Amino acid sequence: MTLSNIFHNLDAIREDVCNANRDLARFGLVTLTWGNVSGIDRQRGLVVIKPSGVPYDRLEPGQMVIVNLEGIVVDGDYRPSSDTPTHLVLYRHFERIGGIAHTHSRHATMFAQARRGIPCFGTTHADHFHGPVPLTRPLGEQEVAMDYETATGNAIVECFAGRDPADMPAVLVAGHGPFTWGQTAAASVQNAVALEAIAEMAIGGMTICRQMPELEPYILEKHYQRKHGPAAYYGQK
Amino acid sequence: MTLSNIFHNLDAIREDVCNANRDLARFGLVTLTWGNVSGIDRQRGLVVIKPSGVPYDRLEPGQMVIVNLEGIVVDGDYRPSSDTPTHLVLYRHFERIGGIAHTHSRHATMFAQARRGIPCFGTTHADHFHGPVPLTRPLGEQEVAMDYETATGNAIVECFAGRDPADMPAVLVAGHGPFTWGQTAAASVQNAVALEAIAEMAIGGMTICRQMPELEPYILEKHYQRKHGPAAYYGQK
Amino acid sequence: MTLSNIFHNLDAIREDVCNANRDLARFGLVTLTWGNVSGIDRQRGLVVIKPSGVPYDRLEPGQMVIVNLEGIVVDGDYRPSSDTPTHLVLYRHFERIGGIAHTHSRHATMFAQARRGIPCFGTTHADHFHGPVPLTRPLGEQEVAMDYETATGNAIVECFAGRDPADMPAVLVAGHGPFTWGQTAAASVQNAVALEAIAEMAIGGMTICRQMPELEPYILEKHYQRKHGPAAYYGQK
Amino acid sequence: MTLSNIFHNLDAIREDVCNANRDLARFGLVTLTWGNVSGIDRQRGLVVIKPSGVPYDRLEPGQMVIVNLEGIVVDGDYRPSSDTPTHLVLYRHFERIGGIAHTHSRHATMFAQARRGIPCFGTTHADHFHGPVPLTRPLGEQEVAMDYETATGNAIVECFAGRDPADMPAVLVAGHGPFTWGQTAAASVQNAVALEAIAEMAIGGMTICRQMPELEPYILEKHYQRKHGPAAYYGQK
Repeated sequence: MTLSNIFHNLDAIREDVCNANRDLARFGLVTLTWGNVSGIDRQRGLVVIKPSGVPYDRLEPGQMVIVNLEGIVVDGDYRPSSDTPTHLVLYRHFERIGGIAHTHSRHATMFAQARRGIPCFGTTHADHFHGPVPLTRPLGEQEVAMDYETATGNAIVECFAGRDPADMPAVLVAGHGPFTWGQTAAASVQNAVALEAIAEMAIGGMTICRQMPELEPYILEKHYQRKHGPAAYYGQK
Repeated sequence: MTLSNIFHNLDAIREDVCNANRDLARFGLVTLTWGNVSGIDRQRGLVVIKPSGVPYDRLEPGQMVIVNLEGIVVDGDYRPSSDTPTHLVLYRHFERIGGIAHTHSRHATMFAQARRGIPCFGTTHADHFHGPVPLTRPLGEQEVAMDYETATGNAIVECFAGRDPADMPAVLVAGHGPFTWGQTAAASVQNAVALEAIAEMAIGGMTICRQMPELEPYILEKHYQRKHGPAAYYGQK
Repeated sequence: MTLSNIFHNLDAIREDVCNANRDLARFGLVTLTWGNVSGIDRQRGLVVIKPSGVPYDRLEPGQMVIVNLEGIVVDGDYRPSSDTPTHLVLYRHFERIGGIAHTHSRHATMFAQARRGIPCFGTTHADHFHGPVPLTRPLGEQEVAMDYETATGNAIVECFAGRDPADMPAVLVAGHGPFTWGQTAAASVQNAVALEAIAEMAIGGMTICRQMPELEPYILEKHYQRKHGPAAYYGQK
Repeated sequence: MTLSNIFHNLDAIREDVCNANRDLARFGLVTLTWGNVSGIDRQRGLVVIKPSGVPYDRLEPGQMVIVNLEGIVVDGDYRPSSDTPTHLVLYRHFERIGGIAHTHSRHATMFAQARRGIPCFGTTHADHFHGPVPLTRPLGEQEVAMDYETATGNAIVECFAGRDPADMPAVLVAGHGPFTWGQTAAASVQNAVALEAIAEMAIGGMTICRQMPELEPYILEKHYQRKHGPAAYYGQK
């Protein structure tokens, strides 16, 4: 297969990733150009990602940048998002995810800046995240100096040692903001929307009640499983 | 009367329920697909409800699902909302209500997650709710394991023992979120809008003043009665 | 002049009042039908006010209700706003105002419910209000029982004993919400917008700093006078 | 060159400044007419600024006012913004800036009113501002009486003694609100957007955590430099 055929085959994913990036704006998750979504074609090992610093309302599928898993741009007229190395670490280690979203959505970022994970305070949280949303450890000075964006990815991967990222499709990078993922670029954006909502509700609850009670574990389990478990009965078949 | 005639007669309520569901989005009460509205035809004992997990902007009246009061789907191509059993418990026990709305609207859910009812802090509250909005008791592990959505409905009904649900068309389900109701599907959504507003104002007040004063009982009474009492003089005749 | 001529002459004010009511929605000051604006024709002693309980997006100038200063409906097919008696007290006592707006705008209502006036924390406040926005005293049980809406107006008037309502075009009714006024219906809505903004900023400041500093009196004076004083230089001549 | 030729040459900057003012509304940074943007033609020493008190949705490039650096109106049918003298002080002292925006954006103003600068709590901040956003000292009574708007500009300039305003394109005027700047009018608005976002996130964080941790200095540096340093790699070449 020629290279041009390969890229032609990526047209569908280019469009998905472009739409997912535009959805960041539609859902109110981004300010200026502070966010990016990518998707991966696992068969070909190619990642499609937003070009750096381009506004969402002008994004076209043809502007998406294609990089391989080592970060080499293999197609596209633009520079990829400066966060590309972080996305790549996640794709290399979380082998079943198909899309990643990074935003600075207001309330999720408040938790990241406060250096707190988000406890599970209710069923909205449990519908999407199987337990508290974790926070990465702070990066050391050396890590930042060497390869900052890769180090960010590595710190996320560390957080998920021994657990399945499919069950917890979100993380807060300390002092920075959220990354979310899913089976597709669109799914990663849906998780970014859910994360922002639960972050907002968590903060609001904390203003009502200093010692917010966590959701009963058996209700957390029930809600997560009714939407994501083998016997899920939420949504259409 | 043939079955197809019965369903034909439900066309009006299908449309009302579809519109009421779309209004959840229009009023900013829902994120993604987190909310559902139903309506009941009391004569026929049939409930019309949103299909599970379908986005509001694509909802069509023909997609509404019709179930009987035992929860059997009698018409429709989709699965009904996963919260259908909760709606059915309420319709069986609250015999004069005609519509129910369930949302995860941000501020009402903050109270539900903080496990607090909403005290009556002002006339906006009193215009719609005849006293503090109650909070359900937490569900036990067995209830959740057996028939979670029905248990949720039962916990709501328990809260209203000895009181008229027409006077208090809202409840907060502990750790989950609000349910509201009314004489029609549209009215249940109006109450969801009012509930969200008073929840937001209650939280804001609590940031100004740690010991928020409750509304004088005679003003609560005055406001509730001028809108809902036998001598109501709010609105048009 | 015949009655029909008089009413014909009110066409301009009907349209102003209708637009001002619609602006309540456009500026995000109202939820459902919780707000009303009126205007007065001082020469004829006639007040034009929103019909009770009619949604803003369907309001037409012909639906405005005309009442005299004693509250008798002299023209219109609808019932006037249930808050009409409050408006009338204000028109009778504040002889130079031409329009009144009443809303339950979120942040102003939070202060009303917390039973706090709004201190002058900054120049935005000083640009519109000549000092702290006052809070009415609570109404007694008898007042509420007798003629509630008139008593509300009287409590507002009490607050302004010895001061010029032109300098302070806003008040918070304890446990209820704000009333604002101005030379026209449109001006009363502009003041409602300003009040809501300063209330929101005041609450936000109080979350940053427990002991919010009040604006220096000479800056308050400077800002108020540069916009409203005899030598005002804000805006166009 | 004739005067009319000079003004003709200002057509492009008139349009830029008009669009930048309209963007204040589009980005939700202004209420009523509370904000203004200007731009400067350094070669000619002429400043283009919004007319005072004119709503954003009706602004046309031809309504922009042109003043020289001494504040003399040299072209335009309207009065310039009442804040013009503040802009002029900044243009005189910050010789490399090309545009200035002043707003009363909600969260930035909360900090200004609370008399607090904005500490750097995260990478969103570091992406735009090279350290904590400073707060001006309060103005004295004499300064306010003499030439208030010029004194405001002088207090800002004092804050930047010994530092490069290009690295910190924002300041909070105590008790008033933010000023931001940039190489163009449009850039000053982008910085106003960024400032409002980081202010909102800072306040939110402070409700989660009383002792908010500041961003590690080496991460602050990394983020600022990757977007603004000599080896910046954010955005397109």
